[in-house]
Amino acid sequence: MKKVITYGTFDLFHIGHLKLLKRAKRFGDYLIVAVSTDEFNKLKGKKSFFPYEERKQIVEAIKYVDKVIPEESWEQKINDIKKYDIDIFVIWDDWKWKFDYLKDYWVEVVYLSRTEGISTTDIKRLLSGISDDAIQ
Amino acid sequence: MKKVITYGTFDLFHIGHLKLLKRAKRFGDYLIVAVSTDEFNKLKGKKSFFPYEERKQIVEAIKYVDKVIPEESWEQKINDIKKYDIDIFVIWDDWKWKFDYLKDYWVEVVYLSRTEGISTTDIKRLLSGISDDAIQ
Repeated sequence: MKKVITYGTFDLFHIGHLKLLKRAKRFGDYLIVAVSTDEFNKLKGKKSFFPYEERKQIVEAIKYVDKVIPEESWEQKINDIKKYDIDIFVIWDDWKWKFDYLKDYWVEVVYLSRTEGISTTDIKRLLSGISDDAIQ
Repeated sequence: MKKVITYGTFDLFHIGHLKLLKRAKRFGDYLIVAVSTDEFNKLKGKKSFFPYEERKQIVEAIKYVDKVIPEESWEQKINDIKKYDIDIFVIWDDWKWKFDYLKDYWVEVVYLSRTEGISTTDIKRLLSGISDDAIQ
């Protein structure tokens, strides 16, 4: 059984997240998703709209996802790869080349292009511009 | 096999939507979700942030959901109940008593209380108030 892992915040769940999960699952039979905790986001100077527990539950409910684990530090990836015996590490190509060092731990590293769709940042920006009239 | 149906727009998918779907599925074995089309929302004087196709794909990807159909008119409910041989009709209790007439068509009508959580309207309102600094 091929095991795949990916990482992300998955805030304001949108079609881009869904496509990432669907594409990640194509690389194997079992998909683990590491969802950033609120504490880890804080460390990165970021704040999600929804708390970890809600983001986690939504990702867990997606058909392509077999297991969700918390992402709590930059360093945990090597441990995750060993612990879950991961074959393929999938990430958006915003991070291109950045995770090539993981190949030393016997994992394939796949960068997915964000050719289509929208990011959570775009959504927050668009929504922050909408007027009260448009809210119903 | 007990068949359940529910209706909604499912815009900006959040934990409240997920709980509705999970609770609806508990009433049976097969859950059909009717997602409002953009045209139907327009008719109601509403506009969703995400288009129908994206909202539909996300609902379809949820583990508790077996089938998604478009909601295109107020009147289709009776037809849906007959066509899909529905046993239980589930809806938020914002609509309490409003769909009791469906009982004439041999369906149980269940109103779920929104005791917990947040609505899409709340989310749009909160996000429209966030400053650019908070967007990242």
